[in-house]
Amino acid sequence: MNKLLSESLATATAGVSLLHDALLNQGVSTQAVEWSPPLGGKDLHDVMADQRRSVANELALSKMLNSGAVLVDVKPASEALNLGRGEFLHAGPPIEWSRASGPMRGALIAAMLYEKMADSAEAAELILEKNGVALEPCHHRGAVGPMAGVVTPSMWMFELQDPSTGNKSWCSLNEGLGKVLRYGAYSPEVIERLDWMRDVLGPLLQVGVRAREEHIDVRAIISQMIQMGDEGHNRNRAGTLMFLRDLLPFMIEGGTSSDVARAARFVGGNDHFFLNLVMPACKLQTRAAENIPGSTIVTVMARNGTDFGIQTSGTGNEWFIGPAQTPHGLYLGNYTADDANPDIGDSAITETA
Amino acid sequence: MNKLLSESLATATAGVSLLHDALLNQGVSTQAVEWSPPLGGKDLHDVMADQRRSVANELALSKMLNSGAVLVDVKPASEALNLGRGEFLHAGPPIEWSRASGPMRGALIAAMLYEKMADSAEAAELILEKNGVALEPCHHRGAVGPMAGVVTPSMWMFELQDPSTGNKSWCSLNEGLGKVLRYGAYSPEVIERLDWMRDVLGPLLQVGVRAREEHIDVRAIISQMIQMGDEGHNRNRAGTLMFLRDLLPFMIEGGTSSDVARAARFVGGNDHFFLNLVMPACKLQTRAAENIPGSTIVTVMARNGTDFGIQTSGTGNEWFIGPAQTPHGLYLGNYTADDANPDIGDSAITETA
Repeated sequence: MNKLLSESLATATAGVSLLHDALLNQGVSTQAVEWSPPLGGKDLHDVMADQRRSVANELALSKMLNSGAVLVDVKPASEALNLGRGEFLHAGPPIEWSRASGPMRGALIAAMLYEKMADSAEAAELILEKNGVALEPCHHRGAVGPMAGVVTPSMWMFELQDPSTGNKSWCSLNEGLGKVLRYGAYSPEVIERLDWMRDVLGPLLQVGVRAREEHIDVRAIISQMIQMGDEGHNRNRAGTLMFLRDLLPFMIEGGTSSDVARAARFVGGNDHFFLNLVMPACKLQTRAAENIPGSTIVTVMARNGTDFGIQTSGTGNEWFIGPAQTPHGLYLGNYTADDANPDIGDSAITETA
Repeated sequence: MNKLLSESLATATAGVSLLHDALLNQGVSTQAVEWSPPLGGKDLHDVMADQRRSVANELALSKMLNSGAVLVDVKPASEALNLGRGEFLHAGPPIEWSRASGPMRGALIAAMLYEKMADSAEAAELILEKNGVALEPCHHRGAVGPMAGVVTPSMWMFELQDPSTGNKSWCSLNEGLGKVLRYGAYSPEVIERLDWMRDVLGPLLQVGVRAREEHIDVRAIISQMIQMGDEGHNRNRAGTLMFLRDLLPFMIEGGTSSDVARAARFVGGNDHFFLNLVMPACKLQTRAAENIPGSTIVTVMARNGTDFGIQTSGTGNEWFIGPAQTPHGLYLGNYTADDANPDIGDSAITETA
């Protein structure tokens, strides 16, 4: 039994005083340890000595704060991202089948079954082992994918745009919790749900989004939801409800009653639905700060279940990659850290922005 | 220009230390003034010396905490409350036309026009002046009404029930902000909106509520909304959205698309809609504590725009009445305290429970 919640915690902080001060302000007794990063390496020294850095980072920050995110369309990835048959996107930095973790492999198998590129998990694995599918990170197309983040041509995508730059970003529709592709599940119920999302939910959302005169302002909803108990990554209830409020009347007018009722229950019953709008909104915010020479602002943090990769503004699309970590946490039932997979997903974009 | 928001505030508290402590905990410097109520009068002495009081109040509190509130039906006041033609309910303690304030008179005129008991405001006034309508407080029928709180037989009511007692309580449907009957407005747009609420919104809500297998648990929604920025009186956004989430799928299945879409826009566009469910839920909570001999728990606080009345548990349905106060507050535009009406409405039930 994990004792994290049953015993009192002792806290200590190292380095910058921000966390130490925050704990003190909350009346938590804590120990501060003085620490600053070693400046031994040449690379770090070069960055610290770069005269452009301060101004470049101010510019990056200003561009991020000026950015916005409105929902302009909902359409299949084949249209939104020119994703062709046999091309899949995935979360995190680049990876091939041989190095992919269990959840990523499961999601890729689900994607093969969903796209009818294989009629069994075994057949799908055979193709994937031979690299018979072109894999590419979501981030390479300006998109983001939660957990395994696998996107296939038939999946419907939210398309968001930043009015300050014209940049676009995309994310698939959230499947809910439990057995879902993004967690690596590929049982029939997973594929059936994805089929319904492709045939009914996606087109209905498109009808609603296209019928509105004004685009839904995702950034404005985010600014309200964080005042309503949501933090926009693991809790998105208020955001999901405000999204439903703004879109559902148009879906009601444009769809058949039974379809719209099922869609309303599906979205309303999935507090995570709005996460897939928060993520591309955050991606647009960091995209606004991309490619500023000398800026050290981190624009991407993403995990593929094996590797953790970051990109920074000044270094453009170059990945800096290390091993994905396995968080220490509480586990359901009798599961332990031994059952855990290293961290996975592009959703860390919500902490990057 | 009112300086309430532009200047720093000095605070002082008198009596019980609760408010003083709360201010100190928020880092506000404040001055505590020792004060306790004078015990000169015989009535107060009798109450303080009543041996039953402590046990009776504990019982009252326990009944309030055990009470619940589920939405069991939506139907016209004629059915829900046996309200007959020529009978109107109103907020606060009993009042007749001659002592009624402007907003209450305006609401009564609107009610006459809405019920087609008069074809002009002047004709309505003539009838009301001669006491041609039977007026009775909402609270006398177990109902509650916001602001003027005028209820007529054709208005649709939420019907809530407390599973712990079987008690019921009722409240009309919220009209939104601006020119509305409960603020005393009676222009054609007010009556047209009420007509639509009678002909379309009420029946649709009834269809939705009756189609659900489980009653909507209003108390459970209240417990969530107060964690989401709502306080349940002047802010009810999260509550309204959760109510829509739980009911709209059934309305979609049971109504015509254009009606349901308009209803979804009307409810979703009115953050106060759920207030009219919070109020009867609070009424059920205080009703659970009614009529306990010796209990001094206040079960009703209500204003009719002229008088402020309370009821207590031990004294049953007896009203204790004083003048309604005019709050010191901020005013829109060039309005000042001279334009203000004394306090009005049964919504103080949200502070009573």
